Amino acid sequence: MTEKMKLLKAKLSELADLRAASAVLGWDQLVNMPEGAAVDRGEQIATIEKIQHIKSTSDELGVLLDDLAEYAKQLDPDSDDARLVKVAKRDFDKQSKIPTEFITNFARETTVAQSVWEKAKGFSDFAMFQPNLERLVDLRREYADFFKPWDHVYDPLLDDFEPGMKTSEIQEIFTALRPKQVELIKAISEKEKVDRSFLYLNYPEKNQWEFGEEVITKFGYDWKHGRQDKSAHPFTTSFGINDVRITTRVKDDYLPTAMFGTFHECGHALYEMGVAQNLNRSPLADGASMAVHESQSRMWENLIGRSKPFWTYFYPRLQELFPSQLGNVSLDKFYRGINAVEPSLIRVEADEATYNLHIMLRMELEIALMEGSMVVKDAPNAWNQKFEEYLGIVPTNNAEGILQDVHWSFGGFGYFPTYALGNLVSSQLWEKMSEEIKDIDGKIENAEFEVILAWLRENVHVHGAKYEPQEIVKKITGSKITPKPFIKYLNHKFGEIYDL
Amino acid sequence: MTEKMKLLKAKLSELADLRAASAVLGWDQLVNMPEGAAVDRGEQIATIEKIQHIKSTSDELGVLLDDLAEYAKQLDPDSDDARLVKVAKRDFDKQSKIPTEFITNFARETTVAQSVWEKAKGFSDFAMFQPNLERLVDLRREYADFFKPWDHVYDPLLDDFEPGMKTSEIQEIFTALRPKQVELIKAISEKEKVDRSFLYLNYPEKNQWEFGEEVITKFGYDWKHGRQDKSAHPFTTSFGINDVRITTRVKDDYLPTAMFGTFHECGHALYEMGVAQNLNRSPLADGASMAVHESQSRMWENLIGRSKPFWTYFYPRLQELFPSQLGNVSLDKFYRGINAVEPSLIRVEADEATYNLHIMLRMELEIALMEGSMVVKDAPNAWNQKFEEYLGIVPTNNAEGILQDVHWSFGGFGYFPTYALGNLVSSQLWEKMSEEIKDIDGKIENAEFEVILAWLRENVHVHGAKYEPQEIVKKITGSKITPKPFIKYLNHKFGEIYDL
Repeated sequence: MTEKMKLLKAKLSELADLRAASAVLGWDQLVNMPEGAAVDRGEQIATIEKIQHIKSTSDELGVLLDDLAEYAKQLDPDSDDARLVKVAKRDFDKQSKIPTEFITNFARETTVAQSVWEKAKGFSDFAMFQPNLERLVDLRREYADFFKPWDHVYDPLLDDFEPGMKTSEIQEIFTALRPKQVELIKAISEKEKVDRSFLYLNYPEKNQWEFGEEVITKFGYDWKHGRQDKSAHPFTTSFGINDVRITTRVKDDYLPTAMFGTFHECGHALYEMGVAQNLNRSPLADGASMAVHESQSRMWENLIGRSKPFWTYFYPRLQELFPSQLGNVSLDKFYRGINAVEPSLIRVEADEATYNLHIMLRMELEIALMEGSMVVKDAPNAWNQKFEEYLGIVPTNNAEGILQDVHWSFGGFGYFPTYALGNLVSSQLWEKMSEEIKDIDGKIENAEFEVILAWLRENVHVHGAKYEPQEIVKKITGSKITPKPFIKYLNHKFGEIYDL
Repeated sequence: MTEKMKLLKAKLSELADLRAASAVLGWDQLVNMPEGAAVDRGEQIATIEKIQHIKSTSDELGVLLDDLAEYAKQLDPDSDDARLVKVAKRDFDKQSKIPTEFITNFARETTVAQSVWEKAKGFSDFAMFQPNLERLVDLRREYADFFKPWDHVYDPLLDDFEPGMKTSEIQEIFTALRPKQVELIKAISEKEKVDRSFLYLNYPEKNQWEFGEEVITKFGYDWKHGRQDKSAHPFTTSFGINDVRITTRVKDDYLPTAMFGTFHECGHALYEMGVAQNLNRSPLADGASMAVHESQSRMWENLIGRSKPFWTYFYPRLQELFPSQLGNVSLDKFYRGINAVEPSLIRVEADEATYNLHIMLRMELEIALMEGSMVVKDAPNAWNQKFEEYLGIVPTNNAEGILQDVHWSFGGFGYFPTYALGNLVSSQLWEKMSEEIKDIDGKIENAEFEVILAWLRENVHVHGAKYEPQEIVKKITGSKITPKPFIKYLNHKFGEIYDL
């Protein structure tokens, strides 16, 4: 049986190599590629992905997995081999249900939709994007149907990002979370506004870059297995455990963008870099889910990167790099400035207290579209109404409203909720970590991140994709994903800042 | 039959995409990759190349090519389709003769040999590299045997780089060429040495980079379909016709390295960028051979880039960028300095008059090794003896002797002669071009390169790999590759510089 296990690993390694190759092509496209190469690059990626789909649904692989099912049952169910067989089987079953023609067709539609969306956003013209979005909604409903029976049409979409999670679970979590966040924001809105004008001065790019690299080096980002580049939208990508790259963007008239972007992507990267080496070149060399991934990025960005102890250590260095901009801004004023809460239109610029509301309204719209209880044409109005209900403000145009995010243009329905779940998981893990590591604040105040990283490595990173998101969260914290620690965290942090 | 032609093109496009993907992985490895990713990257490239080999030798492709052979006979033999079938059939037949295990084994041996060579060169220790080189010689002889019967064991190796050319043809050319070059060098050695000390001053990198980019922009390098980066050794790579990238290296204490390196690689790139768009994503989207490729790079580097008219235009700009270094160096002194002839040990630094002798001695050694008339152990002595015979100097150690080049460590026997042939072809094409374009010197003196590029596009670039090297050279110039124009060029140029 070990011979068959070897054969399985060889096949999965080949698939991992193809995924890595495709990821390199994608990274290069966003970071380096000359503009005239876009069409050819699309073909190259399509070819690799087609080969990948064919290989990942081959009869040979299916038979091998069936043969190994019995063997895996005799193993410790948490062993690498047992989990590898399980995850590989899950992937095989999912992939096998999708016809290759659907994949080709969907890829073609999304390639077009992305460029139409970009233009539509430029003109703030939803009608321009509407036919594409309608086709993508249809295609996504068709996709969901491949996985019937399901409890909810949204389940199969969600499952691509959060293996094993159901729509109803997330709805339950969000239902508990929403009123608490709305309440907090209302309380804050009655307080005096925090001054953050100093964040909008001229901040030369070179020093911003230097600061970001200094911080993430302290976090533990491993430059022998990674690099940072610039791109239009920040992202993390990995070509296996040993090459995990991040990108950022720098605005020379707004300090937070590059800084928190770099911390955030570093959090993602530390996760991928920390997966056990023996899982490399396998489907387990990945995060448990998007939400667990996001818990890592949000933890380094927010729980650490926007905390008072963090800035107690790093603020003098930042002032040194920007003496004319920050020389007269006190630590306290800076800390309050980067944590100011204010309802805003753009998700990626939202503060910690309002962020999840942006997510919830998107998920509600996605579900209505998938259920068919709302048609695409009515979506912009629904967006604006919900915005007013949740955040008390209304977009003045669709570019800063429903057209702001790229996700729907690549058919990524089911993706948004993972951002909010990630926030919840980050607090839930942090609560557990605080029980096990003494005086975390003191460690952060001295930029001693090793013990934090070691805890995350041991409890989260090293397992890669062995566990489903709910499994690993429960394994670590004793309970499934719950909003309580996050609500507690928000109330405590902003209660202090706003004197509530 | 057009259906089958379509199917063939689809299959060849897929193979072209895989080649491009592998090339992107290779480019990234040399330009961007963090050091800790080397092993994984090796696996990724090996996986892509394995898939490529399997697909390029599939029975399905073989049958399709056989079916299309008759159809192709009815077409104009120079039409794209007829040539595509011909070249695809040639590649298929070659690839099919090589067992997949040989490819895997050879890849493994060369990966190891390259790192051993690098160390051996560092220690100047040939004995360290000897066992690897012995195995590579054996493997290359085994490789040649797959293609029996042949006239000469070296023929199949050469054929990988110069389709259709025979060892005897090249030997004949070199036999005519060698005494002429030796004679010229002897005459020059009796003249006073040219001063080139000003090339060794401190030249800040930024301005070197700027100058290189200015020049190649004028040459016609298309930045919408390319970019320039730094790497340890300069190279050109293409991911299809629409993404052709070059690299260079900059020495801040020696001006010629980056400058002529950039011109050289630009010459390669212009060739790839100029292939007809309808040949894209096919095996015809390539150069005719390495020699024809090298003719393009050497033309822009030497025939143009080291010419008096070129510097008449560009020298004032160079002086402007380096006023303290070149402000007091006259155009004439600069021109003589960059064209100084002096026997030297290192091929890549050799001048135009001595360069080919470096090549000839390598080819003679390669042939002796492949024939078995010399064993690897005796190669360093043979190297040094030939060096004295051809160039009148002897390396004091193996690092600056037989270990200087990377080529043998990747098993690239048969590659070197293409460099010398490239020099010959560049002069042969130039002679023809000079008949057809009036006052080329005047054009160069005004940096009007459009007419030169247009001539090369029409006569060379646009055809891609449709013709074999001897075919295309004859088609353009009326004769096969001959050393005469090159000898004439050398005698004329250096006769003037050295007043012979």
